[in-house]
Amino acid sequence: MNIDMKFIEGGITAPLGFRAAGTHCGLRKNVAKKDLALIVADKPAAAAAVYTKNLVFAAPIALCKEHLSDGRAQAIVCNSGIANACCPDADKTARQMAACAAEALHISERDVVVASTGVIGQSLPVSPIQKAMPDLCAALSDSPQASADAAAAIMTTDTRKKEACVEVALGGGTVRIGAIAKGSGMIAPNMATMLCFLTTDADIEAQMLKRALTRAVEISFNMVSVDGDMSTNDMACILASGESGVSVTDADERDFTQALTELCVHIGKSMAADGEGATRLLEIAVRGASNEAAARTLAKSVVSSSLVKTALFGADANWGRVLCALGYAGVYFDTRKVGVCFSSDAGSVPVCKDGLAVAFDEEKAQKILSRDQITVEITLGDGAGSAIAWGCDLSYEYIRINGDYRS
Amino acid sequence: MNIDMKFIEGGITAPLGFRAAGTHCGLRKNVAKKDLALIVADKPAAAAAVYTKNLVFAAPIALCKEHLSDGRAQAIVCNSGIANACCPDADKTARQMAACAAEALHISERDVVVASTGVIGQSLPVSPIQKAMPDLCAALSDSPQASADAAAAIMTTDTRKKEACVEVALGGGTVRIGAIAKGSGMIAPNMATMLCFLTTDADIEAQMLKRALTRAVEISFNMVSVDGDMSTNDMACILASGESGVSVTDADERDFTQALTELCVHIGKSMAADGEGATRLLEIAVRGASNEAAARTLAKSVVSSSLVKTALFGADANWGRVLCALGYAGVYFDTRKVGVCFSSDAGSVPVCKDGLAVAFDEEKAQKILSRDQITVEITLGDGAGSAIAWGCDLSYEYIRINGDYRS
Repeated sequence: MNIDMKFIEGGITAPLGFRAAGTHCGLRKNVAKKDLALIVADKPAAAAAVYTKNLVFAAPIALCKEHLSDGRAQAIVCNSGIANACCPDADKTARQMAACAAEALHISERDVVVASTGVIGQSLPVSPIQKAMPDLCAALSDSPQASADAAAAIMTTDTRKKEACVEVALGGGTVRIGAIAKGSGMIAPNMATMLCFLTTDADIEAQMLKRALTRAVEISFNMVSVDGDMSTNDMACILASGESGVSVTDADERDFTQALTELCVHIGKSMAADGEGATRLLEIAVRGASNEAAARTLAKSVVSSSLVKTALFGADANWGRVLCALGYAGVYFDTRKVGVCFSSDAGSVPVCKDGLAVAFDEEKAQKILSRDQITVEITLGDGAGSAIAWGCDLSYEYIRINGDYRS
Repeated sequence: MNIDMKFIEGGITAPLGFRAAGTHCGLRKNVAKKDLALIVADKPAAAAAVYTKNLVFAAPIALCKEHLSDGRAQAIVCNSGIANACCPDADKTARQMAACAAEALHISERDVVVASTGVIGQSLPVSPIQKAMPDLCAALSDSPQASADAAAAIMTTDTRKKEACVEVALGGGTVRIGAIAKGSGMIAPNMATMLCFLTTDADIEAQMLKRALTRAVEISFNMVSVDGDMSTNDMACILASGESGVSVTDADERDFTQALTELCVHIGKSMAADGEGATRLLEIAVRGASNEAAARTLAKSVVSSSLVKTALFGADANWGRVLCALGYAGVYFDTRKVGVCFSSDAGSVPVCKDGLAVAFDEEKAQKILSRDQITVEITLGDGAGSAIAWGCDLSYEYIRINGDYRS
């Protein structure tokens, strides 16, 4: 990192000009689980988003594309529990969500971003949302707790809240970028396959914001895999208030993008670590590929392999599965130059060199692979392309969670 | 089926002109588990094979391509336990296996097909194979038990032997095609990702045999998915003895291909049903796609989805996950015309019509989904393309098996 940035406390309310709130409106049976989040900018903000590439997408996704076509927004409303997808009334419901937020906030419907996450194919009742909206607006606050409440409200099977904020020196001033996100299943490495809401107090033009977000997503969320399933609902959306008074000039775009990327990588890793049933965070680092795109494809193939994931759940140094997953990635590499090394905070152990087995201490390998964070370092001899993908192991708990998700 | 064929008892020794044997040579610790198989034709036979498309492939695969380049072979030797892949001495070991079989059988090394299956990256000791070869040759027999012994010897994590035979009327006579195979993990829908050895007593020319096998594999083994991981070792190989005295003419090629396909589908389904940890066989039937290739891609996407597989393990009619997996398959379809129906021998329940939810009885759906064989019928409104893919649910047992495979 060659820019002046640091992680600071707080989430989406740390950047100036934003308030948030989260509540239980009644979509979920468990009253202790918040299920409705609201994020509001004090004034209309520059806005950009990237969306799931699934051909089957939820009604809110279509509405967001419509509402964000002018590059501005002022509020994000998001429920968890029901995805509002593949139901006869889904489009109407999404519009009603936008309308009731707009009315309560006295802003234009077009400036409201709507998102939903949860079960596909169930009707989303809008009345609990409509009823909760006045109190939710009254609860809006720029406190850290307000960001945490919104983060809690968008969680589905997540076991931990995802929230972070960075501060970056830019053009003689300082701007903040904050984020909340939800994981943790149905996460595939192909475009924003989760929900992430970001705020920044940078003064930045919508097209530049879109470019920065697209690049950040490409090497963060798009490199996270939990189960290879790409959701119908997911998106990353950022609002820029400009309240820091610091303009992001063309010269600053690179630094802003890098800070945004670091934040997204941080959030992406926390999603992988909290993947459904995860007991370990896996980091697959590929170096020496023919180019960056090839490196990304190879890293994603390994991190998505059920056999690699189960081996690492079992702390089993079964590196043949790593080679196997590289081999079917669909990208050419010289198999005679592959090296594989497992590492963690307990040390590192090379297991494959020049595509062939090397002798290693099984006991030591097991100790290394028994840690919470494992890195699989893959070195190729084909060029300067490198990439990192993040994922998690595949455990009994994943099966339990997904064998009966709807009940 | 519009040809005159039926399944008969027996496996690879039911066709005339073949003998087989299987033994425990000592590659596996468990002396009760056979680990070496031999299949021999009385005379050099026409031969064809299709191979894994994995860039990282085992030494025996390379050797088979070399030995089968002349379209003939007389013997197949196959060990289980160690894959003979990614080891410094792998190529030499594969050649030694061929040489010792050739010597014991008094045939040419070039007429020996070698295959291995098991752990990648461990050295395969050749001496147990060399020592066992004379006795294995002495045990060769055309009895049903001999086929069963060979089938047992190639099993890895399979819980059941895969063995079948069909008899088909052709050109005024009758020919038989037999098969043994091993599943059951590391099975992905992309070219022969398992081991299957086939024999036939048809008199058929090697190029026609290759065409028939390629087509049969395309709509059978290539439509089977257990975990989406494509192995480094897998292949399907067929030997034709001609001993039936029935020549397969150009006019008969279609019927021979269809009989071979039915046999391969039968074997493929038994591999899916015995997928690692499987509790149910899943059949994904797509109709109304724009063409056959699109139908295949869509069916494979659904059968490979971890979320669909875990839902069906839980007998949960979570059809949204089916739509989701269709949506990210990478093939266009009109989402407003999708229908989904779950069925089994306990009945059927439509759950989605025109891309939208339809009301259904959850209790009835659960009863249907609790059976051993489930069909997910997907209807599209785009054309006449249809395809079926086979797979299995994803259970706790898959995790247990693969969390510690090597020990």
